[in-house]
Amino acid sequence: MPRVSQDHLDARRRQILDGARACFARHGYEGATVRRLEEATSLSRGAIFHHFRDKESLFLALAEDDALRMADVVAEQGLVQVMRDLLDEPEKRTEEHAADWLGTRLEVSRRLRTDPDFRARWAERSEQLTAATRQRLIRQREAGNLRDDVDVTVLTSFLELVLEGLVSHLAMGLPADDMEPVLDLVEETVRRHRRNS
Amino acid sequence: MPRVSQDHLDARRRQILDGARACFARHGYEGATVRRLEEATSLSRGAIFHHFRDKESLFLALAEDDALRMADVVAEQGLVQVMRDLLDEPEKRTEEHAADWLGTRLEVSRRLRTDPDFRARWAERSEQLTAATRQRLIRQREAGNLRDDVDVTVLTSFLELVLEGLVSHLAMGLPADDMEPVLDLVEETVRRHRRNS
Repeated sequence: MPRVSQDHLDARRRQILDGARACFARHGYEGATVRRLEEATSLSRGAIFHHFRDKESLFLALAEDDALRMADVVAEQGLVQVMRDLLDEPEKRTEEHAADWLGTRLEVSRRLRTDPDFRARWAERSEQLTAATRQRLIRQREAGNLRDDVDVTVLTSFLELVLEGLVSHLAMGLPADDMEPVLDLVEETVRRHRRNS
Repeated sequence: MPRVSQDHLDARRRQILDGARACFARHGYEGATVRRLEEATSLSRGAIFHHFRDKESLFLALAEDDALRMADVVAEQGLVQVMRDLLDEPEKRTEEHAADWLGTRLEVSRRLRTDPDFRARWAERSEQLTAATRQRLIRQREAGNLRDDVDVTVLTSFLELVLEGLVSHLAMGLPADDMEPVLDLVEETVRRHRRNS
């Protein structure tokens, strides 16, 4: 095997993750066979599993990758913006991968319910998102934008609970066209109290 | 077959629903075989399917029965109380069937995601709960307990979204011991604004 540069390895890893994300979203974890992963990534199984030990490791890397991306959006724009992005039509989404991201997230939710081993492996990773949400809220509080009569931990849990509800709502195929004012209410709930109306 | 009184029919129907609820919660929809339903209800398949056309009809009747019970709690105590009941330890629950109710609800969520026919049949039934929540909020607004700067429809959707998040959170086996102050915040959000702290 020829020696390859780190850049090349990173690009290859990215290629695998992007293909696998679409594949898991479309077929679910069990349905994403090695054959389908080969097609989705345009790579051989040898190339794929040179980068990831097995399918489980690939899925976890993907979910972690998504959580970090989401944490970036949270850090810059807040968790409510993440929720607004979920509601947008695909063509209006600020993040291109929102639909696939939702698919991965649903697979994570399903496996958390049914697979205790996965639950343990996921627990540590999900803390990154919580930490990012919390960090942003602390900065917002310092900037005077956040209400100061409720603990930041409680506000973080509140936002995560609403996000979880929204993911579940969308997963069930329920109508979401009336959700914008609900998210306005959620945003207002965590902000410093200013009545606008 | 001997003629039986309406009371007897009602009692038998109740016996079937109670047994089936535990059975679906324990084994899931697919896993609740006719054999297991017989064991759980202490009745023969003939007796069970005299009252319900098929397994699907039985499950829908059960989910509807739960939604109506929940609507009663909502009407009397509000949706936030339903959420608090979900968090309580089994021995502290005001409603005895809360754990089984959660099991049924999770099965409903799962089938809504995976079964479009079920989604259509469920849509009309789920409106009862929405209507009960909305009715209670309207009465609360008339009593001056509810904030009046946000539409009742928005407040209803907000509460339902948080409930969905809580159900999903519990289903994933995530820790819920820090949820009480979050529900306090949810309750405060829909009430007429009075700063207590």
